[in-house]
Amino acid sequence: MASVAIVGAGLMGTATAWPLSDNGNDVRLVGTHLDGAIIESCKERHYHPRLRRQLPGGVRPYFVEEIGEALEGVNIIVSGVNSLGVHWIGRTLGPHLHPGQLIIAVTKGLESEKDGSLVVLPDVLASELPTAIREQIVFAAIGGPCIAGELAGRRHSYVYFGSRDAGAVERLAEAFRTPYYHVRTTTDLAGLEFSAALKNAYTLGVGLAAGLVEKAGGADEASAYMHNLEAATFAQACVEMGRVLEIVGATPAFALGLPGAGDLFVTVQGGRTMRLGRLLGAGHTFAEARQIMAGETLEAAEILRTMGRALPLLTARGALGQEELPLLRALSNIIVNDRRVDLAPFASVVEGDSRAA
Amino acid sequence: MASVAIVGAGLMGTATAWPLSDNGNDVRLVGTHLDGAIIESCKERHYHPRLRRQLPGGVRPYFVEEIGEALEGVNIIVSGVNSLGVHWIGRTLGPHLHPGQLIIAVTKGLESEKDGSLVVLPDVLASELPTAIREQIVFAAIGGPCIAGELAGRRHSYVYFGSRDAGAVERLAEAFRTPYYHVRTTTDLAGLEFSAALKNAYTLGVGLAAGLVEKAGGADEASAYMHNLEAATFAQACVEMGRVLEIVGATPAFALGLPGAGDLFVTVQGGRTMRLGRLLGAGHTFAEARQIMAGETLEAAEILRTMGRALPLLTARGALGQEELPLLRALSNIIVNDRRVDLAPFASVVEGDSRAA
Repeated sequence: MASVAIVGAGLMGTATAWPLSDNGNDVRLVGTHLDGAIIESCKERHYHPRLRRQLPGGVRPYFVEEIGEALEGVNIIVSGVNSLGVHWIGRTLGPHLHPGQLIIAVTKGLESEKDGSLVVLPDVLASELPTAIREQIVFAAIGGPCIAGELAGRRHSYVYFGSRDAGAVERLAEAFRTPYYHVRTTTDLAGLEFSAALKNAYTLGVGLAAGLVEKAGGADEASAYMHNLEAATFAQACVEMGRVLEIVGATPAFALGLPGAGDLFVTVQGGRTMRLGRLLGAGHTFAEARQIMAGETLEAAEILRTMGRALPLLTARGALGQEELPLLRALSNIIVNDRRVDLAPFASVVEGDSRAA
Repeated sequence: MASVAIVGAGLMGTATAWPLSDNGNDVRLVGTHLDGAIIESCKERHYHPRLRRQLPGGVRPYFVEEIGEALEGVNIIVSGVNSLGVHWIGRTLGPHLHPGQLIIAVTKGLESEKDGSLVVLPDVLASELPTAIREQIVFAAIGGPCIAGELAGRRHSYVYFGSRDAGAVERLAEAFRTPYYHVRTTTDLAGLEFSAALKNAYTLGVGLAAGLVEKAGGADEASAYMHNLEAATFAQACVEMGRVLEIVGATPAFALGLPGAGDLFVTVQGGRTMRLGRLLGAGHTFAEARQIMAGETLEAAEILRTMGRALPLLTARGALGQEELPLLRALSNIIVNDRRVDLAPFASVVEGDSRAA
């Protein structure tokens, strides 16, 4: 049994409370400064308003101001913030950490250095910790297709835990694994993180394909389905994910499995990245779509901005051919340069793509 | 410009009439003995009742009895029959063929020899031709995500044409390619055919996952989506497709691209294989599901029967480990041995699977 603090009371972080609690761990849920209303509800009614569920019995909720108390004696910290909160959580946890603690993150995202080179979020979090403690903490992350509401509903869900520390990642898996939460492990932490970030970026592409077809008239009376362009975009996404993983020295097989095709599949079933893609496909620029979706965190767009900085660098270095990753280049261009998208040129991108396949 | 006869007036065969006709080819559409009503409608009103569209202007319809006339002077024959019609079409075409003609098939399926070894359908068709002509005909096939109604609606669709003859497959692509029908080529005909067959088999698995989750209650009021198990099944399918392609000496990269992940994606959007899977997930045996779906061609089940014969052979030969392809083995077992499926054991199959990933 472990003592676990989940920091960040959003959907995915909080959902891990179910398997953790079912395994008999001592679980604390700490809201960020944005989660005040959630924690209030959790304290008053033991009810999480976004997950729309009662929390598991033993879970104890804490306001951000109570974080010191919440972190007392914990072995494992779940970082449940989104990509905008990674620097904050690093700075916030810093003073409370002890050697040997494990931090596992649900956050999807990617940052880049000034020179364009890519940094995965567990390393960003680590960089915010005091140097003295940084080397004594183990960092890990969760990847793979897992919708939070299903995990909280104790439905079968399959994920990878990744950490560069092979022993630690097994201990973490042990703490979380239940008959419904199927956890595999990998030491390719960066590969898992790249997959998670890329599948978000490419989900935007599949949403865009759907939006373009809808704008062109959608299903007519003779055709119940209009998914051919989406399917080709999905396939191109898988091919390109495999290539990026290869370029960055990660496990290319992730593209075929849970972290790549699997997570892409579940993410294109719906949600805000698909909605953003559909808005772009419907003819809005990113600036317009962002206004329509004001207040929502658009992680896919941030990832595409980051890739937009990294791609020219990788190309200049010769790691990547000029013609490679046409879909990722096009999606970055749409976000970074606020380009309006039309069906025919997008269809050509998907075409050009798979000649490389 | 070529003269083309499409033999078999089903959805997919007929849909190729649109790009062929738009390219200025002379196109004839020949019904089988099962397509009498369709051809009658095409002759009377130039209307295809299953595609629910007017045929392109120049397309000439023929009854099966008129096949000799229809095949006069053609360069290309599209085999538009389903897997049950492959032997028939070979025997029927035989007497009418001339050296140098190209036969391209839309059929998805797989057969096995008595010893269990796998045979792709273009080779089955060839085996039905008189020996004298067999070597003088070029065989090709179409793979990739393409719903017929969308192609007939001139929507962007992306496919591979495969033939062992590199020059012929380019000539074929030339005859079919339009701004909306994006055709790539490969000489790995067998790999393309295996991918097409396997994605049908695995679609049944994704449908089964969906059915099991629906039976377990589906989405509750707290969770809009219930796709985690489907997504894990999808990922496992991609991993296993890659492994089968490797074992049979085909292009493993097809698993990531249009023929694998792409075609699987479009096929799980709906249709009879998903319906069959859902019925099995809902608790029916295959025998029961087959009765419910009486009259429908269940190609996925036939492919799983074929794989059920081939898997023990490949395992005995040492080409395949006992523990490999757990999902394909489980699906074959469900069909061949008429097994009723429950959620927990199926979830374990998906789990066991990806340890191999």
